[in-house]
Amino acid sequence: MSHLTYQTAGESHGPALVALVSGMPAGVDVDVDFINGELSRRQGGYGRGARQRIETDRVEVLSGVRRGRSIGSPILLKVANKDSRLDDLAKTPPVHTPRPGHADMAGSVKYLTTDCRETLERASARETAARVAAGALARCMLRAVGIETFGFVRAILDATWAGEVAEGSWRSLVAERDASEVYCPDGASGAATERMCAIIRQAKIDKDTVGGLVEAHVFGCPPGLGSTMNWFDRLDARLAGAVMGIQAFKAVEIGLGKECAFRPGSKVHDPIAFDPSRSGTASLGFVRSSNNAGGTEGGMTNGAPVVVRGTMKPIATLLQGMPSVDLNTKQAATSAYERSDICAVSAASVVMENVVAFEIARAVREKFGGDSMVEVEAQYRRYLELARGLPLDRG
Amino acid sequence: MSHLTYQTAGESHGPALVALVSGMPAGVDVDVDFINGELSRRQGGYGRGARQRIETDRVEVLSGVRRGRSIGSPILLKVANKDSRLDDLAKTPPVHTPRPGHADMAGSVKYLTTDCRETLERASARETAARVAAGALARCMLRAVGIETFGFVRAILDATWAGEVAEGSWRSLVAERDASEVYCPDGASGAATERMCAIIRQAKIDKDTVGGLVEAHVFGCPPGLGSTMNWFDRLDARLAGAVMGIQAFKAVEIGLGKECAFRPGSKVHDPIAFDPSRSGTASLGFVRSSNNAGGTEGGMTNGAPVVVRGTMKPIATLLQGMPSVDLNTKQAATSAYERSDICAVSAASVVMENVVAFEIARAVREKFGGDSMVEVEAQYRRYLELARGLPLDRG
Amino acid sequence: MSHLTYQTAGESHGPALVALVSGMPAGVDVDVDFINGELSRRQGGYGRGARQRIETDRVEVLSGVRRGRSIGSPILLKVANKDSRLDDLAKTPPVHTPRPGHADMAGSVKYLTTDCRETLERASARETAARVAAGALARCMLRAVGIETFGFVRAILDATWAGEVAEGSWRSLVAERDASEVYCPDGASGAATERMCAIIRQAKIDKDTVGGLVEAHVFGCPPGLGSTMNWFDRLDARLAGAVMGIQAFKAVEIGLGKECAFRPGSKVHDPIAFDPSRSGTASLGFVRSSNNAGGTEGGMTNGAPVVVRGTMKPIATLLQGMPSVDLNTKQAATSAYERSDICAVSAASVVMENVVAFEIARAVREKFGGDSMVEVEAQYRRYLELARGLPLDRG
Amino acid sequence: MSHLTYQTAGESHGPALVALVSGMPAGVDVDVDFINGELSRRQGGYGRGARQRIETDRVEVLSGVRRGRSIGSPILLKVANKDSRLDDLAKTPPVHTPRPGHADMAGSVKYLTTDCRETLERASARETAARVAAGALARCMLRAVGIETFGFVRAILDATWAGEVAEGSWRSLVAERDASEVYCPDGASGAATERMCAIIRQAKIDKDTVGGLVEAHVFGCPPGLGSTMNWFDRLDARLAGAVMGIQAFKAVEIGLGKECAFRPGSKVHDPIAFDPSRSGTASLGFVRSSNNAGGTEGGMTNGAPVVVRGTMKPIATLLQGMPSVDLNTKQAATSAYERSDICAVSAASVVMENVVAFEIARAVREKFGGDSMVEVEAQYRRYLELARGLPLDRG
Repeated sequence: MSHLTYQTAGESHGPALVALVSGMPAGVDVDVDFINGELSRRQGGYGRGARQRIETDRVEVLSGVRRGRSIGSPILLKVANKDSRLDDLAKTPPVHTPRPGHADMAGSVKYLTTDCRETLERASARETAARVAAGALARCMLRAVGIETFGFVRAILDATWAGEVAEGSWRSLVAERDASEVYCPDGASGAATERMCAIIRQAKIDKDTVGGLVEAHVFGCPPGLGSTMNWFDRLDARLAGAVMGIQAFKAVEIGLGKECAFRPGSKVHDPIAFDPSRSGTASLGFVRSSNNAGGTEGGMTNGAPVVVRGTMKPIATLLQGMPSVDLNTKQAATSAYERSDICAVSAASVVMENVVAFEIARAVREKFGGDSMVEVEAQYRRYLELARGLPLDRG
Repeated sequence: MSHLTYQTAGESHGPALVALVSGMPAGVDVDVDFINGELSRRQGGYGRGARQRIETDRVEVLSGVRRGRSIGSPILLKVANKDSRLDDLAKTPPVHTPRPGHADMAGSVKYLTTDCRETLERASARETAARVAAGALARCMLRAVGIETFGFVRAILDATWAGEVAEGSWRSLVAERDASEVYCPDGASGAATERMCAIIRQAKIDKDTVGGLVEAHVFGCPPGLGSTMNWFDRLDARLAGAVMGIQAFKAVEIGLGKECAFRPGSKVHDPIAFDPSRSGTASLGFVRSSNNAGGTEGGMTNGAPVVVRGTMKPIATLLQGMPSVDLNTKQAATSAYERSDICAVSAASVVMENVVAFEIARAVREKFGGDSMVEVEAQYRRYLELARGLPLDRG
Repeated sequence: MSHLTYQTAGESHGPALVALVSGMPAGVDVDVDFINGELSRRQGGYGRGARQRIETDRVEVLSGVRRGRSIGSPILLKVANKDSRLDDLAKTPPVHTPRPGHADMAGSVKYLTTDCRETLERASARETAARVAAGALARCMLRAVGIETFGFVRAILDATWAGEVAEGSWRSLVAERDASEVYCPDGASGAATERMCAIIRQAKIDKDTVGGLVEAHVFGCPPGLGSTMNWFDRLDARLAGAVMGIQAFKAVEIGLGKECAFRPGSKVHDPIAFDPSRSGTASLGFVRSSNNAGGTEGGMTNGAPVVVRGTMKPIATLLQGMPSVDLNTKQAATSAYERSDICAVSAASVVMENVVAFEIARAVREKFGGDSMVEVEAQYRRYLELARGLPLDRG
Repeated sequence: MSHLTYQTAGESHGPALVALVSGMPAGVDVDVDFINGELSRRQGGYGRGARQRIETDRVEVLSGVRRGRSIGSPILLKVANKDSRLDDLAKTPPVHTPRPGHADMAGSVKYLTTDCRETLERASARETAARVAAGALARCMLRAVGIETFGFVRAILDATWAGEVAEGSWRSLVAERDASEVYCPDGASGAATERMCAIIRQAKIDKDTVGGLVEAHVFGCPPGLGSTMNWFDRLDARLAGAVMGIQAFKAVEIGLGKECAFRPGSKVHDPIAFDPSRSGTASLGFVRSSNNAGGTEGGMTNGAPVVVRGTMKPIATLLQGMPSVDLNTKQAATSAYERSDICAVSAASVVMENVVAFEIARAVREKFGGDSMVEVEAQYRRYLELARGLPLDRG
């Protein structure tokens, strides 16, 4: 294999967003409908702006797939922009007053320009469409080794859903999440969803914006994905990098996360037990009465669900504007308003879920090698068999 | 230049820990005393175990430096282990009962062994000595462009220091931190330090362990370090990956961090102003009345101090043991006790500060290129001049 | 900056070939006509097959460029395939008999298939259209620092052009090359071109194919591009990797190349002299009476033109067929004929020139850093000034 | 796994040369005697200078190995320098007159110094001791999957050994090579060795130096190592980069190499046949009547031996000196003489063999994944079984 990687390109109002995924094995059933479904989910959620009504994101596969299956070559996923006007100065005029919280000021200085447009077009979160496409593609591969993900909104401002997401019950939450206007799986009551929507409505009235907490859970990982041997190969390090690399994210937690600081070790670490009835699963029968670790120990999966939580700050583009400076004159000015969302936390939950999935897929590729799914699946099964047979005769 | 990178090697009870730093420019004054000082600080802090009394970490420079100055080639930093006994089965016997919270179980499965020793020797946080050495070396380079860092302990369990760390006042805090048994710059009162020490004492009595919060602040970064163009080049993504990659870290925050979820945008984003009297500094005169962003916007520095906060979970090795399983028999057993610390949050503050510094140095190298400090400094100055002259005639 | 890299995607009969170029500074004038000109040149040359009459390669820029100038973000270059039919089994049927010399056999085993089509579509040299586009884009950047390239055909089979290509005279050769049906700059006489064409004509009659030697010369590099510090950062190593990575290349030489084995040191190494009248050029006045080193010493440019020579083997698809095996039956069979060229050495000269240019551009980015051409050019000039001022006061 | 990589550090007269190898699976029997044997061979060969009498290179393993076996963590190999004096200005004085053909001039300009010492210490081929150690370590891993290498001297100046090296007979050549003063396996006659030695003797008299051709053959590779999917993942590209990255190499060829330019396709490509009696070997029974491709097609191994040829130029340090320039005064001067060899082609054959082996090992790691040799070997065998069973039911 070549290593599983992805890179994106594209501007918010350029012709297209693209993701180039390299290192996918041959023989993956590329489920374009599924990818498009995730793109649609990314466009949804209560509180989104006008842009989402203009675009209907659909992926076009320009390479790497033949008759619905990957052939081992790089896969180019393209999402065309309907609202393409980057070269038209009248329609995408220069912006000289940077928005606090956005890339505008730092980017303009970095590129030695006073037109924030030059940076903001790439810095825009519209780029996450390409990341979602890449992650959703990775999930087509993960299916074959029984790994699935579930992402949702945990909190918007002070409205928090306190429900649990467990290995045995998460599937029933998918429909609940999908029924929620804000992607919060709060089910029949819908109480959390209702509070979140109310917060967003109020923010709109206030010409303000709101952020929140999103979570992704990954089920079916065997112990041993990731590595403890190099800091940059640790799965937790990669997850943190990938999640913090999403536009507007300011915190990443794994498992109990920040709360780990506030409990003694005896209340944090998850006791290990062995349940022979579950030794046939990917967990190999190693079970935990809690999952405070969020499924990673020493930078590797431990067989429990991987749990990642991200904090999205409020959108930086406020209808009320923010105090800023004109970069040409250095005089005080109110920041420009680019068409934007009031709250994009729902979309962020989709982005994070797919970004997390990609990192898991990368770790799967590294663990099992192989160039085709036939080989990957054989090696996955062989690893579990060997692990179940421990101690090895020669081990 | 080649890219600035580092890699570590070495086991807890092997002959040595090493860091291989590649891409350092020629002409850096390598301050070995400073590096050793950071190594000593890493060994300190109230609550550490017996190992720190055995070792006196000192760095040996095996390559890349001539007569005290770097020559542009890879720099190998070696920290010898006095307690070297990896090959001696009597002194480092097999461990068959994994400690919850440590790499033991996941690593043993991954490597198809039932001897947790094979993984734990590398997974041990003793490896952070090498990371501290690499980061401290990077700081020797950063000095030349006026960038400095300050790391400290913010909280241990529920004892929190609520003080502020500001650009104008942080220098006075260094001595206060250094006077604190737990590296908390709480100054004359010492109230926070006292509570933290009490918590550690109690944890020892309880045969338990405690974690906490650590912070690193970076001063003197000009706007434009890092990048918004690729997710993996974003400075915040790299910082998060580097910090989460430290042993036992479970959360990373930048600036206001998780709190961003709980405030509206108008209370999060930092208004931009221009103060001509400060245009001669690295900030170019762009000043903020708050620094909730923690110095990064759009994945780039914005001229304000970079603020990173990490959560360290409690040490996974508890004197009281934890419920676990014998990997050979699959029977319940209490986890083994390897000599360990009650609390290593102070050490973690040193590790994080230096790890953060390395990522900043990496971004500096990428921004300014060059092969020698003469060239790096010239290019740094030229960039600031050009930025001050905006708008450029051709810009 | 992010590092300057490129990656390609696309199959021979898929929808498109693409190149994703990351790390280009902002402010490069992207000369689409020039890129298209190189794509046209790649399609030309005596001895090409029917495919080149079907396609008229034109680049479409999907990202990273606004109003004709790069903005620092990843640049996606797309070349659409007119002959797109990868999913149509009737038009791109399975191939079960691998062609000796092609990727067919090794690729089919690797991907555990007996349909060579799955590999050959990506392995096809049509992919070089994307590489040419990436390299030609890089040359738009190189122009700004005075670096230019010249690629041509040196030999086809036993017809060799013995002319010299020197810094002072190469410009006059461009028109001669462009006037030659095989891209050999043999000028008025056209004797070499005539012999090469005759060889190709005869090969066609013989249902055979022919290869040859191609050269790329790079002018205007200052001393010090590349690095001697890591083997993988050496410019000669990168050039060799990039050139050997072109389809059908089996040898790479720098400067005198293989001939270095057959001369004593005193007849190989290029005496160094200093000519003050040339100190204003990129060579800084360091002149050589010969250029056997081909412009690199110790993995770095030395101020003399960089000279790279590649050997292209004959095309692996012979009209006469070759002895092979049916992968399904393991019985002897004659290899399949896919529409192909008799000789593609002319095209290969275009590919190699652009591939070499990209590696030079990569080294330029590493040496000078910077995010915009304003900054890159300032740092380039500053480096030359500092170098001219050696010894530095502090050096 | 983490990816298999290596990096070296160390100066010619610094304390040590080191190689840091990352990504080696656990369970490799690390044969230190074998590694030391290769280090000794690197020091030998007729025509070497005084340095080789000072040093007795022995590897010290500082990490990654426990009781003779790798444990999956980074392995640091250290070769101490007896002649360590880098910091002593009297013993390693500044050098102001660069040697043509060496890194001296380019490196001094790059690093803005007039003391060539600063660059030449790292640029020196003494660094190849670390590369040999890394490659020899990789061969300890390759043994377990039946892959072996054989490197030797093909020519020194115009003395060429014309013998063949075939899969069935190469083992008998090992002793012949080892009996030759110049590592040329010319056996009983010793005619080529004798001529080579005579050439070296004459060069010494002439105060000159000589280069030559070296070859490495790799046996036992199954089809499908490497990749055709990305140019930078192609095995031939990586081999070329690694070999050209060796000090003083100016050409790399695979298989027939440059000669491919001078033969028609029908005389170049290797007919494919299937021999059921050999289907149990790594070749899977795919046999060739010739091996002009040198074992790679489309950037992947094809089951035939991999054959790489490198050209080493004559040593750049001539006892007679070469015309050069004093970098401080810019006046003409004769280049300085650093203690050096007359001919190091024998050593280069050892370096290239081990460097080639490392790239093969890297491709093995990528193809089979896995974290321990138990897993790697299981996956290797499973791949061959699957390949032998082609066409797969689902394929």
